[in-house]
Amino acid sequence: MIQSHLGVNRMKDADTTIAALKELVRDFRNRRDWEQFHTPKNLSMSIAIEAAELMEEFQWLTSEESRRLREEDERAVTRLGEELADVIIYCLSFANAMNIDITTAVMDKLAKNAKKYPEDEYKGRF
Amino acid sequence: MIQSHLGVNRMKDADTTIAALKELVRDFRNRRDWEQFHTPKNLSMSIAIEAAELMEEFQWLTSEESRRLREEDERAVTRLGEELADVIIYCLSFANAMNIDITTAVMDKLAKNAKKYPEDEYKGRF
Amino acid sequence: MIQSHLGVNRMKDADTTIAALKELVRDFRNRRDWEQFHTPKNLSMSIAIEAAELMEEFQWLTSEESRRLREEDERAVTRLGEELADVIIYCLSFANAMNIDITTAVMDKLAKNAKKYPEDEYKGRF
Amino acid sequence: MIQSHLGVNRMKDADTTIAALKELVRDFRNRRDWEQFHTPKNLSMSIAIEAAELMEEFQWLTSEESRRLREEDERAVTRLGEELADVIIYCLSFANAMNIDITTAVMDKLAKNAKKYPEDEYKGRF
Repeated sequence: MIQSHLGVNRMKDADTTIAALKELVRDFRNRRDWEQFHTPKNLSMSIAIEAAELMEEFQWLTSEESRRLREEDERAVTRLGEELADVIIYCLSFANAMNIDITTAVMDKLAKNAKKYPEDEYKGRF
Repeated sequence: MIQSHLGVNRMKDADTTIAALKELVRDFRNRRDWEQFHTPKNLSMSIAIEAAELMEEFQWLTSEESRRLREEDERAVTRLGEELADVIIYCLSFANAMNIDITTAVMDKLAKNAKKYPEDEYKGRF
Repeated sequence: MIQSHLGVNRMKDADTTIAALKELVRDFRNRRDWEQFHTPKNLSMSIAIEAAELMEEFQWLTSEESRRLREEDERAVTRLGEELADVIIYCLSFANAMNIDITTAVMDKLAKNAKKYPEDEYKGRF
Repeated sequence: MIQSHLGVNRMKDADTTIAALKELVRDFRNRRDWEQFHTPKNLSMSIAIEAAELMEEFQWLTSEESRRLREEDERAVTRLGEELADVIIYCLSFANAMNIDITTAVMDKLAKNAKKYPEDEYKGRF
């Protein structure tokens, strides 16, 4: 059933839970018996490798040029979506492997950052 | 209202949409006027930097030791959750900045990978 | 004259100074007017991108398999040499751009590490 | 004798061979029996981790600001030298582990790049 989503693909961020994406990624891996390769150590390497590929798209661009991509270079945005997907797929696999609730982890970290960087003190600066 | 979630934090992956997490991250940034620093180029660097910090936790572990963390080292799992959250927060910011629908990007990429790695041919091997 | 080395290539680690390698890299860049792209920020990204490509060669290998490459897979060693060269070339460019004496930096760091990790205390462990 | 260099430290890039630096790094590792941890896989991770730490120094700087560091921020240059040293120390360890002659690898790669990017065609552009 999940597999069928891969074909239809009408789900969007507005109506897709983190758990649903995690499940898709788990299902993809299980169908190929890849759990044996997906040790947490290897998955952490995979996240870093894919992150570097995403970054490579910006290697020689100025920050301003990187901002303009969104409006001016549709093909670049498509490529970036693919590279970002690679990073996120491995993040989801890592969360599956370590039994991490991403929502909890993200909200805890944002709460911690909110204390570290109070709004009035860090307005417009680091 | 979103901010209040940061305190209560009862949301979980099962009932949290990608869009909701994206919105939390956007709100956090907007309250500090950090959009000016968050160019796509800088965000891609940030994803890679945080990915390396996650990987650092596994630097000297064997793959087997990395698997055992989940059962044997609760504090390590907490740290890994925090590091993973950092990677994901920047991924969400990047998707916000580039107007990328993560669900679409992930499902498109899984569909592409499913063609590249047919289940029967890649069962248990790469 | 330096350029001619690129063709002959009889220099080896035993008789090549760091300064000579730095000069080769500087010359390569100057002949193409690439100094304008080689900001320290961009070069630091380039080092990280090439490091990830080197790491990619080991993504799914066990540590033991990675050790055996040296004896068992000549082509892999050649590829690794190329990937390592990419990392080092950008390190040399970075040192050129920031006017860093690599030998001094490395020896200072080793001296600092020697204090941090006394031989008897860290024998065989971290 | 090598160890004594760590204290005196008068060697510079102009009179230090790659082989001499490799030997220093090998000696440091041997004195601590760390060869067991330094699998090629782990060393490739270490290079990437240290590269990310170097990059972190530039995370929120513009390219222009990154250029000015060299003249305007002596302490930043010192920190960058240390971070670069970390990357290079692991590169030297990796070359030791894989029996790679760095000079040969770098010159071969520059020769390959010189063919890929002819001077007249790539003058001032990528």
